This record gives sequence, structure tokens and C-alpha cells, in this order.
Amino acid sequence: MMNRQIVLRSRPEGNPTVDNFEMVHVEVPPVTDASVLRRTIYLSLDPYMRGRMSDAESYAASVAIRQVMVGHTVSQVVESHNPAFAAGDFVAGYDGWQEFGLSSGRELRKLDPNSAPISTALGTLGMPGMTAYVGLLDIGQPKPGETVVVSAASGAVGSVVGQIARIKGCRAVGIAGSPDKCQYVVDELGFDACVNYKSAGFHEDLAGACPSGIDVYFENVGGAVFAAVVRLLNNNARIPLCGLIADYNAVKMPPGPNLRPLLVKRALIKGFIVSDHNDRAAAFQKDCAAWLREGRLKYREDIVDGLEHAPAALLKLFDGRNFGKLMVRVSQDPTR
Amino acid sequence: MMNRQIVLRSRPEGNPTVDNFEMVHVEVPPVTDASVLRRTIYLSLDPYMRGRMSDAESYAASVAIRQVMVGHTVSQVVESHNPAFAAGDFVAGYDGWQEFGLSSGRELRKLDPNSAPISTALGTLGMPGMTAYVGLLDIGQPKPGETVVVSAASGAVGSVVGQIARIKGCRAVGIAGSPDKCQYVVDELGFDACVNYKSAGFHEDLAGACPSGIDVYFENVGGAVFAAVVRLLNNNARIPLCGLIADYNAVKMPPGPNLRPLLVKRALIKGFIVSDHNDRAAAFQKDCAAWLREGRLKYREDIVDGLEHAPAALLKLFDGRNFGKLMVRVSQDPTR
Repeated sequence: MMNRQIVLRSRPEGNPTVDNFEMVHVEVPPVTDASVLRRTIYLSLDPYMRGRMSDAESYAASVAIRQVMVGHTVSQVVESHNPAFAAGDFVAGYDGWQEFGLSSGRELRKLDPNSAPISTALGTLGMPGMTAYVGLLDIGQPKPGETVVVSAASGAVGSVVGQIARIKGCRAVGIAGSPDKCQYVVDELGFDACVNYKSAGFHEDLAGACPSGIDVYFENVGGAVFAAVVRLLNNNARIPLCGLIADYNAVKMPPGPNLRPLLVKRALIKGFIVSDHNDRAAAFQKDCAAWLREGRLKYREDIVDGLEHAPAALLKLFDGRNFGKLMVRVSQDPTR
Repeated sequence: MMNRQIVLRSRPEGNPTVDNFEMVHVEVPPVTDASVLRRTIYLSLDPYMRGRMSDAESYAASVAIRQVMVGHTVSQVVESHNPAFAAGDFVAGYDGWQEFGLSSGRELRKLDPNSAPISTALGTLGMPGMTAYVGLLDIGQPKPGETVVVSAASGAVGSVVGQIARIKGCRAVGIAGSPDKCQYVVDELGFDACVNYKSAGFHEDLAGACPSGIDVYFENVGGAVFAAVVRLLNNNARIPLCGLIADYNAVKMPPGPNLRPLLVKRALIKGFIVSDHNDRAAAFQKDCAAWLREGRLKYREDIVDGLEHAPAALLKLFDGRNFGKLMVRVSQDPTR
């Protein structure tokens, strides 16, 4: 049985291109005792992957040249010698950009397709949702009545941030990159407001959307968006620093924003990495699964068909062409 | 009786000049019931004064044009109708750039010249010392064995930060702007190391002085010094953001440092203003007065004689020409 894999062929300078990747065909190894073979259904594409393609120092190891690109996956078990899993089970894992995964199964999490669509394990109920949950609640510490602003508001993380902010009694203001994304954020996700950072009136629009200033700014973007936000910070504002996607492809690191407003406003910035917060996984799953069932957490998926299109699809993240949680359908989802 | 005062004549654009100030002579008002008249002995000069000269929004009101410049003072009571004070008493207050202060006395703090030199009420036992104390201990949260780096290390705040870091069992590394300042910081103040940010090898020197990375960076400076420090941050580093003196005279706000290392290292930056932490004043006075008596807190003063020289003296702060706590001796100190 053949396994199609996408490996890293070269490291990008600046913007990644499809030529940084290469499709290879390898044989699936035999399934040995106590291992689990599964077929990938969905492969998640996320901004952190840009960091793995680089050999700059970061919080996680780079993908080596010729190594299969990493990534979260939802799969179906084909054959299992691990009593915790049976053929046909759906599992969430980290199998990367390939059609089949094989391991002891220790790192897999079983999914119940009757409780939530299995693809949500890559979004609202997966790493992006958990990032939103711990970043907003544990680091942002929002209090009812406060104003929470989130950039990349229609994205996998931002969409959950604003909806949890609403659930917690805050004013939720999104920042997104097009009128249709802004409309979706307000009309479908229920944010109080959303402003388009590409509009000429962005600074005024943001100020108008935050008449009481900004208490929590959940940062996914960096660059000019950050600079606009810091002007509106309230005293003792909190800034969970989750991502800086505007900078990920920079060849020369940009100098970043002026810190003076942070001093004057006694603001706090705290960088965080979701994997440091695994002690919160149970609370996250409990809360977000309940909110999803109750219809209080909505989501949108941007699904690209075919593993071979993963490289081109990934590039959409860096110029905001995706709309919703970006993932690749590697094989048919039998639950849909 | 005449009172010499220095008032703000105009707001600086960029670097302040002596022409932004003007000396005026006014009559001392009669001492009414329940008020305290005192003669200024020492006037403190501090970087925050640059902010008060500007009308940009900040955490404290600007000094109005023609208003007496603000500032912490140590004075001797001339006449008192407030039973809490008697003629001859030494007091710490906020009388600003003038020879005499007159008020109810409610804001004054009595000083015991036998317990510590009265001028320390402007430095180690005053606002700068308290800034170091709450910024390092409450915001920086240093743990024994960690590396604490402080910029402007020979200054009024930085010198206390490093010495408290040593008292708390940390490695203390200073950053200062000349070889003699660095020598003083190590030889007199007892820091483990001090590097000169004006030296060509600054980046390497700093890395060499911090072989285990940086856990706490007490920021007084901003600009290029900050950029050098963030490269060496350890995971979960804390950055009490106290001052950004490199930027205070900027006409166009500089863009500031790259935030990516803060994200990768899960670092925390927290702006703070010492006056928010008055609940810590008693603990500060108790601890720092004891450490001063025990010889564990050393200090250096840079005293300029004559109120008329206060404007020129203030300018020394912004290019690092002061060496030690800068203050003006407005009248004779009878305790020396």
C-alpha cells in the first residue's frame, strides 16, 4: 500500500512558495504489534507551520529538509493492535502532511462523531480553539463589561476568542481584512462590531467601535494593526500575544510597535504557546464542546480537496485569502 | 520674603533646552493657620519630568505653561502651624522647582536625619528606590539563581534594582553607558557584571555576561538596548517596563522592538507606574532603610548647586551625562 507524503524540499526566504514542498510516494510500513494505522481525512493548515519551515530558533523544532511536514490531523483507524482503538474509529492526531499515519497510538485522541463534526477537532475543539480559550481566559482575564478586541477575527482562533468574550459578558470587537469577513464576524458570530484593517478609515473605525477603549487585545497579527490598537488601550490592559502573522514571512524582522503606550497605560503583554497549557485541556474540551452543542460557538471551514493542494492552500493563510478554518480534505469524510 | 521659582516657559520639540524654562521671583505668601512653610534643600531631577513638559497624553497631568515645574523635594520647615511639624524639621515633599513650599503639610513626610542622610529621600529611600522595589519584586518576581538585567544601571532606579536582585540571590547584570559607570556598578554596587551599550561589542558582551540567558529585564531605556536584550530572553521572562528614556525626546515615536522573541519565549512585559503601588510604600521603607543601614544598598549622588542650574542639569539625564542620582542643592544642607 502506497502512502503519499508532502515533504519540505527547501526553506523559504520570505514568502513560502509551492516549490518549497515536494510530493513523495513511499510504501506504508507493515503494521506491527501494538501499533495503529490510520488514514488521514482532514489535515489542518495553521500559521505556525511557517515557523517550522524555517531554521530560526523557535519554541519547537524545525521540520528537517526531506522530512514530512507536520500538522494536526483527523483520521480514521484502518488497523489497530492497540486495544484502545478499533478499525473505523475516528481519531485526532499529529500525523502531518500524508495519507497514512502509523504509531503506537499513544498520542491519539478518540473522537465521537455524534458529539460534534469530526473536523471541529482541528478548529473550535482543537488546537486553535484551545489557543483562544487559554489565551483569552487565562492570560487576557476578561471581566464582564470590558472590551475585548481580536485581530484575524474570522480565523480559526479569532472567531473563538470573540465568541467566548461575548459568552463572558464582554464587548467583542473584531478586526478582519475584508467587508465580507467583517459582516460574517458580526452577523454570524455575533461580535458587537468588526472593522476592516484595509479600509482607509481603519483608525477611526476602530476608535468608534471601542468607545470605552480596549481592555484586552488578543494579538494574532502584529504590524500596523498592533500599532492602531495600542493607541486605544485602557489602563491595565492585557495583551495575550498569540501570533504575529504579518511578520512571519519578513526577511528582515520589522522593528515592531512603540512601547510607550504600554508604559503609560500599565499594559501587560504576555507571549504564550498553547502547548504549555495542557493542564487546561480538560476544561477547554468541557466548556467549548458544551458551547458548541448549545449553538453559542459557531464556526466556518475553508476546505481544500486533495493533499496535493496543501502547499498552495497554506500560502492563503499569509495573505488572508482563507475564510474560516483552513484544512485539506485528504480523503473522504464518511460522516458527511 | 522672595521665592525664586522656575516655571515652564515653552514646550520642547524633541530635546528640551534651557530656554524652555524661566526663573521668576514672587513673594512668599503669608503663612496662614494650619499651613507649613519650608525651604527647599534638595530638588530631585528625574526622567519623568520630560513627560510633564509635554502636552501628550500620559498618566499624569502636564505642567501648564507659566506653572512652576514639579519635582520631589527635601526641605526644612521654616514655620509651621500644623502640629505635626515644627520649625527645623526635615521633610520630603513635592514642592517643585522653587526655594520655598507652602501648604497644609498633609502631603509631607517627616525625615529623621539620624536614620539616613536626608538626600536619600530623593533616591534610594524615595520615588526612584520605590520604583526599583515594586518593579523588580512585584512585577519582575525574581527567583534565587535567576539572571536579572537592568539598563541605566548606575542611575537612581537601576542601581537599586541590581542591588536588590543580589540581595534576593539573583545574578545581577547592569547595562550602562561608559566604562567608569560599568566599573562603579560592579566594584561599588556589587553587580556580577556590567556591559557598556556604547561599546562595539555590546551584543557579545551582554551574551557573555548572561551565560544562562535573561529571566528578568528591568527596562529603563528602550531603543537599541531593548532590542539587544530580547535576543537573550529565557522562557517565561518578565520585563517590568519602567522607562524608555531613549525615546523621551523623540519627535516622531520610534517603532520600537520586534515582538517575535516575546512570543517565542512566552515573555511578559508589564508597564507600571510607581504611584499605583502606594500600598507597598511601608514595606519598601522598612526593607530599603534596613538594607541601607546594613550597607547592602549603596548609592551615588550627582549634586548640582543652585536652583538656577536646574534646567541645564535636567538635560544631562537625557544623554546620560549624570552619574548617580541627579539633584539640585537649592539651599545649604545643615546636616552635612
